[in-house]
Amino acid sequence: MASQEDPTVSSPSAAITPLTPFKYSNRVLLKTITERADERPELIGQRVVIGGWVKSSKEEKKSSPIAPPLHQSDKKVDPSKTKDVTCVEILQSKIPLIRSIMEVFGRTGYAPPKKDEPVTHKPTPPQPSTVYLMVADGSGVASLQVVVDSSLASPSKLLPTGTCILVEGVLKKPSAKGKQVIELEADRILHIGTVDPGKYPLSRKRLPLDMLRDFPHFRPRTTTVASVMRIRSALSFATHLFFEHNAFFDVQVPIITTLDYEGLGKMFLVTSLEQKADEDKLKTISEVEGVDLETVKAAVREKSNIVENLKRSDSNREALVVAIQDLKKTNELASQLEARGKTKSASSFKAPQIDSSDGFFSCQTYLTASGGLHLETYAYALGNVYSFGPRFQADKTDSSKQAAEMWMVEAEMAFAQIEDSMHCAIDFFKYLCKWVLENCSEDMNFVAKRIDNACITRLQQTVSVPSDIVSYKEVIDILMKVTDNNFETNIQWGVSLTREHLSYLADNIFKKPVIIYNYPKESKPFFVRVNDDMRTVAAFDLVAPKVGVIVSGGQNEERLDVITSRIKELGLPREKYEWYLDLRQHGTVKNSGFTLRFDLLILFITGLTNVRDVIPFPRSQGKIIN
Amino acid sequence: MASQEDPTVSSPSAAITPLTPFKYSNRVLLKTITERADERPELIGQRVVIGGWVKSSKEEKKSSPIAPPLHQSDKKVDPSKTKDVTCVEILQSKIPLIRSIMEVFGRTGYAPPKKDEPVTHKPTPPQPSTVYLMVADGSGVASLQVVVDSSLASPSKLLPTGTCILVEGVLKKPSAKGKQVIELEADRILHIGTVDPGKYPLSRKRLPLDMLRDFPHFRPRTTTVASVMRIRSALSFATHLFFEHNAFFDVQVPIITTLDYEGLGKMFLVTSLEQKADEDKLKTISEVEGVDLETVKAAVREKSNIVENLKRSDSNREALVVAIQDLKKTNELASQLEARGKTKSASSFKAPQIDSSDGFFSCQTYLTASGGLHLETYAYALGNVYSFGPRFQADKTDSSKQAAEMWMVEAEMAFAQIEDSMHCAIDFFKYLCKWVLENCSEDMNFVAKRIDNACITRLQQTVSVPSDIVSYKEVIDILMKVTDNNFETNIQWGVSLTREHLSYLADNIFKKPVIIYNYPKESKPFFVRVNDDMRTVAAFDLVAPKVGVIVSGGQNEERLDVITSRIKELGLPREKYEWYLDLRQHGTVKNSGFTLRFDLLILFITGLTNVRDVIPFPRSQGKIIN
Repeated sequence: MASQEDPTVSSPSAAITPLTPFKYSNRVLLKTITERADERPELIGQRVVIGGWVKSSKEEKKSSPIAPPLHQSDKKVDPSKTKDVTCVEILQSKIPLIRSIMEVFGRTGYAPPKKDEPVTHKPTPPQPSTVYLMVADGSGVASLQVVVDSSLASPSKLLPTGTCILVEGVLKKPSAKGKQVIELEADRILHIGTVDPGKYPLSRKRLPLDMLRDFPHFRPRTTTVASVMRIRSALSFATHLFFEHNAFFDVQVPIITTLDYEGLGKMFLVTSLEQKADEDKLKTISEVEGVDLETVKAAVREKSNIVENLKRSDSNREALVVAIQDLKKTNELASQLEARGKTKSASSFKAPQIDSSDGFFSCQTYLTASGGLHLETYAYALGNVYSFGPRFQADKTDSSKQAAEMWMVEAEMAFAQIEDSMHCAIDFFKYLCKWVLENCSEDMNFVAKRIDNACITRLQQTVSVPSDIVSYKEVIDILMKVTDNNFETNIQWGVSLTREHLSYLADNIFKKPVIIYNYPKESKPFFVRVNDDMRTVAAFDLVAPKVGVIVSGGQNEERLDVITSRIKELGLPREKYEWYLDLRQHGTVKNSGFTLRFDLLILFITGLTNVRDVIPFPRSQGKIIN
Repeated sequence: MASQEDPTVSSPSAAITPLTPFKYSNRVLLKTITERADERPELIGQRVVIGGWVKSSKEEKKSSPIAPPLHQSDKKVDPSKTKDVTCVEILQSKIPLIRSIMEVFGRTGYAPPKKDEPVTHKPTPPQPSTVYLMVADGSGVASLQVVVDSSLASPSKLLPTGTCILVEGVLKKPSAKGKQVIELEADRILHIGTVDPGKYPLSRKRLPLDMLRDFPHFRPRTTTVASVMRIRSALSFATHLFFEHNAFFDVQVPIITTLDYEGLGKMFLVTSLEQKADEDKLKTISEVEGVDLETVKAAVREKSNIVENLKRSDSNREALVVAIQDLKKTNELASQLEARGKTKSASSFKAPQIDSSDGFFSCQTYLTASGGLHLETYAYALGNVYSFGPRFQADKTDSSKQAAEMWMVEAEMAFAQIEDSMHCAIDFFKYLCKWVLENCSEDMNFVAKRIDNACITRLQQTVSVPSDIVSYKEVIDILMKVTDNNFETNIQWGVSLTREHLSYLADNIFKKPVIIYNYPKESKPFFVRVNDDMRTVAAFDLVAPKVGVIVSGGQNEERLDVITSRIKELGLPREKYEWYLDLRQHGTVKNSGFTLRFDLLILFITGLTNVRDVIPFPRSQGKIIN
């Protein structure tokens, strides 16, 4: 069949260049075949090797001598339709409430994998069949339909979702009507990586994202997570491109630091200690003292609810047993803590500190929460610098916007004031939105279809509409006039804007990303520049609807006397910041910068609501899977 | 003067676009002025704002009414020559031995800053003068000469090295002969950030790199470190560009991990613990048990030598006092350890482990030593992926090629074998070398002049000459024939190639980067693919002269049964790798990849010999400055 359409023989296709395989493997990336395949008739007849993983599959027995079978009247023949969307799934993806209900009731919408589905007829010779595989290799959203005759490989090995194949064949027009405009007729199987469908977690179609979090090493094989991760990758590249084009230098700030960013949150300690006097003692202390009574009591309440719910639903006995055990343990801990509280007053209990100065470093070291101060030293030498890397926070929170390890883009510029960093931050933010629109259209279309149908319009508006820039004072005035909402914190000049305030502003008032600047100095760190009014500082935040603060920035205090008295005012240990003050003492200059929370930006772009779904291997309180 | 050459008046320059200021500040980056200024007469007469830090300076009194003074016959007038190079410095930079001697003898070649040098005539009105400042802003190597009349600002504030200025003025042809082809005549001073020359560490010219390490926050202001950091930045960008062009996705692997990479070195622990029972107890243990007797004894010997040398040189009493105290302390520690050893046999002393499962994570967590395994899971979904980030090792070593925190580029490809990853690694390595040659010529010329005059030729050869690829077996055959060197480890098939072997091969035999592949399986980790001979594995290293192993890579074991028995063979805890084995169980495929040690690559490119000089804030055993 292939020789019939050999490009060297037939006339017009002689000038056509064959598909180029990926440079470091003999396979052709599927994206290069599927992208605009409808506009490229020259693809038909080309011989290629492709590799990927089976997304869905179908086997057709060759019962009649007529082959290929007549598909035209049979809608189910198109494999992308047969298994890809069910009514329940559509409901689940559209209506979160129904989805939650489905989850409680054990996801009856998903057919559990049937172990005996693949038919192997060992005793009698197997009935010949044709296998239709939708194969994806992660290079893009689209799958390619691969047609394999059962004489080439046992269908039972090929059919399970997740099977890896490497096949050689010829591209042709699909024999059946359907969404596909091109398919591969395999004539050589080079590799099969089988799947044990009973154990493979993705055998079930369309698992909800929160369940996928339990399989960080498999979830990029789902179309949704793959799309999000490709968008993430594109945004990483665009980040470097933006700064390169604007003459910034990339500076890798240290992860291990001595700065504990007093008051900005809890930090992780780094130690190379492996010896310890009394293992059990430390364990007990960490278990009992590491938490406070109120937190444990809240946990007891929450866990009691879970147990009650499970009892009512009666669908999962195993889960119930585990939940009851868990509740029992938490209850015990609460009793222990309560007992301690009675015998020992809080004030008499001195919290000693672990000493990580273990002979490796000469002082206590942490995982950095921000590279800003280090980066600034390079701005004082190279002018415009940025850094892109992981930053850490050990706060025990269940927030969907927070993880222990998150990636940040930080930029610092010498000879620049708050307006400059604001403009740069807005340009950068819009650049990233525009980049995704222009370079990830396939993935964005998929995200719009599957996650958030407003995502493309949102980005287009963000790119085209000028940004609103309002002062903290204006914001307070706006919030004081609000009558349809009772805020937990009373609104008056000087209050720190809470998540509640910010989301009201972004979601209800501005309805698009907005920049708020000139905060009261009490609400920002010591290094932010004090304004002439002596009450406010030159800080700003970019707040986006549904997501919150994506960018924080401002002008840094360049005056030695002012910053010194700020450090004193706040009771910070000056000796720790001596090197930072050195910059103010020798050749100081106005400078400003910003931090963009990369993971939150991806939430804004995709419409996802939990950072755990956009970070390849999220780190949060509790278990680490891998 | 400016109006004389107003581009709108004079005829041919009317069409010339004025210099564009940096987008987020009103200043023009110096690089845009100094680059090929000799070929751009249109620059003359343009009015600009520039900012930067004073590299060197000179004041000329206006003694005669003739101004500007006649410089033509006075070679010293060119500020770039007056202070920039002294005979001693040339000797120091060229001949390491002399440099070391100079260091021992207290660097008499450097004039200590004279506090009273800047002349301030408060009682009598100051004599008018002209100040010549060589100003750099970090955007490129070249400085711009800025001419300031003393009526604009007090020369005493402007002259000290390190002073920051922001000035407005007009570009003109230099009035004096010299290296400069353009200079700025300032007519408005917008900002001065003064320096206290007595305290500013860079007041002394051309400090050796090892002294600069004590000032990580100031050293990028030196031309050498700034050049290296710009090259580093260019290489970072080129890294992303290479992978983007080759259809790889950027995946951010986690820094906090549960994998302790058994046997690959000591790792840092991560904990959020802050409570501890007995601070002093732990401290003592870490101080005494954290080190072994032999290490301490070696330190005593080394420190004795230092004291003796200091006594002989007699140049630095303070240093001698500190060294003697240090020696005393180390001696005490040695005695303590020896005493312990006598009362307690080594075997009876059980080393307990710190428990970092402190309620934040449910298990012990580390700073990652490699992102390879995590990255592989994404290769099994997206095809070709890479990661660029910090990796950690807590080994106590004084090696100039090792730091606790180093940046690595890791790449993994599905459907790829060892040859593919070798080719990709070679292409990437050559791409980076070529990138620097083509995009950092100014910085590379400076590096060639100041650090290693062979660096450009070395890169050109690397780019143009095909790479040598030899097997481990061939290497052993070569080393067995060596007669002019006695290796510490006997050469025979099966030995791990030591640093000594590798440097002999790269420096003496191949004299260029060489790839060695197919190592004995005992010398590589469990996940490297076992070859058909069952003795070797599909691993490779790219070894470069003077630097060592810059790239390591290979094909990963895709066969579940083989990798399982390898884990068993090596006695590794299988449960930790269960998720990794999952990939082999479900949809496995041949895959390969590599790791490039980014900091070592910069050593290869610049000819520097210590990673501490190419990492912005190096982390090593001992003190962290900031």
